[in-house]
Amino acid sequence: MKTISSRDNAQYKELVKLAGSQQARRKAGRTLLDGVHLCQSYLQLRGLPEQCVVGESALQNPEVMDIIGQLEAQRAHVLALPDALYNGISQVEHGVGVMFLIATPERVVDAPLSVSAVLLDGVQDPGNVGSILRSAAAAGIKQVYCSAGTAFCWSPKVLRAAMGAHFVLDIFENVDLADLMRNARVPTLATSGYAAQRLYDIDLRQPVAWIFGHEGQGVADDLLSAATHKVVIPHLGQVESLNVAACAAVCFFEQVRQNQT
Amino acid sequence: MKTISSRDNAQYKELVKLAGSQQARRKAGRTLLDGVHLCQSYLQLRGLPEQCVVGESALQNPEVMDIIGQLEAQRAHVLALPDALYNGISQVEHGVGVMFLIATPERVVDAPLSVSAVLLDGVQDPGNVGSILRSAAAAGIKQVYCSAGTAFCWSPKVLRAAMGAHFVLDIFENVDLADLMRNARVPTLATSGYAAQRLYDIDLRQPVAWIFGHEGQGVADDLLSAATHKVVIPHLGQVESLNVAACAAVCFFEQVRQNQT
Repeated sequence: MKTISSRDNAQYKELVKLAGSQQARRKAGRTLLDGVHLCQSYLQLRGLPEQCVVGESALQNPEVMDIIGQLEAQRAHVLALPDALYNGISQVEHGVGVMFLIATPERVVDAPLSVSAVLLDGVQDPGNVGSILRSAAAAGIKQVYCSAGTAFCWSPKVLRAAMGAHFVLDIFENVDLADLMRNARVPTLATSGYAAQRLYDIDLRQPVAWIFGHEGQGVADDLLSAATHKVVIPHLGQVESLNVAACAAVCFFEQVRQNQT
Repeated sequence: MKTISSRDNAQYKELVKLAGSQQARRKAGRTLLDGVHLCQSYLQLRGLPEQCVVGESALQNPEVMDIIGQLEAQRAHVLALPDALYNGISQVEHGVGVMFLIATPERVVDAPLSVSAVLLDGVQDPGNVGSILRSAAAAGIKQVYCSAGTAFCWSPKVLRAAMGAHFVLDIFENVDLADLMRNARVPTLATSGYAAQRLYDIDLRQPVAWIFGHEGQGVADDLLSAATHKVVIPHLGQVESLNVAACAAVCFFEQVRQNQT
């Protein structure tokens, strides 16, 4: 285990930059997983990080000790920081001071859609994107495709909201969704408040691709036209629509239900 | 329409206090609905606010003009502020400058549970609470009961996330949920990852009360024991659980589905 105690250390300054700036994370192709749960999930599902960063007082925490024990047994890099320095790079309040520095997985679309998937068209809110990834993973969906206008999936807020779902998903970003849909080998389903067909009347006992859109504007018109099915979740109340992450959860678990009954 | 142009005006200072402090809102029994959509919904569903506050540049906005027209026709109070003053009380970035000051509805439980309802036990995140209210309203559920540890429903963040759902719901806060469940005349259903009975196997063609708990700890043990049914949403993936708002949406719309088929 290495220790840094000066704010002027070049490696520490690099961590500060990554923690504070989306642009720096994108440029470096690296991100930070903050907190015990994300680190445990990564270790279990993806393996070793480039580096583990730990605040000194967290060295007493049994879960952190367990993580560090596993890392050191495999000769991974562990960096200890005084709490004041650690808090300068952590965005989790009252968290346990441990994070992983990892390379951001970058996937390039190289095959047509042929399994169940989620397509996100300009979903803006990191909490919504994270919740959708989490629900997709829980429903057994493996692939997620995001348009350029969707929140960056590997940002700390999305990672926190998804609770480790990233590590069981293949996430493709900056994807031309229209092109993807044109070549898809599975039905493509867009939800719309104006659709005629009810979610519950669609046969979901097959792989399908779900398309969800911007929180305010919904799925873009060209993608809505390109979808093989437009579906509506029936509403009983006077409220106009569901939150996009709630909508996605309802769709994914209707698919689970149909496949289990 | 009245205009205030000084920050030292007593009425303006009162608005600043309400905008900035949960404690002030609770003490005054008043809250602020920020943005065109919330104001329109309130006007349509609940009627006149105590006061409408509008930023000067928003006076040119057709939707705001329409709202003010309706209010002035009914002799409601409209207060115009220079944009700099308006921005001092608004928490919506890039929003249209209109808000309503309203009395916070306070409901006291005076009858046993006998219709479909949502019980929130320590749900912390305002975005989650708002999303749950929105989904409940969309699914035709009319009553919401919150424990003392749940986020305050009439806070600006919850109001924003719920998109007007508040105005079609009866919301009870600081409720003794154990007591409510003891006297309930409908089945009480708590979701738990450890339950044996699948959501899809429960007969939901009757009124039921749904109980959702804290984001980390779930429903408290005593409430879980008191629930007439413990239900699980089947998971297919390696991810341990759903976000609480996603979980609620799946439950509410399974109830909608069963009642429609």
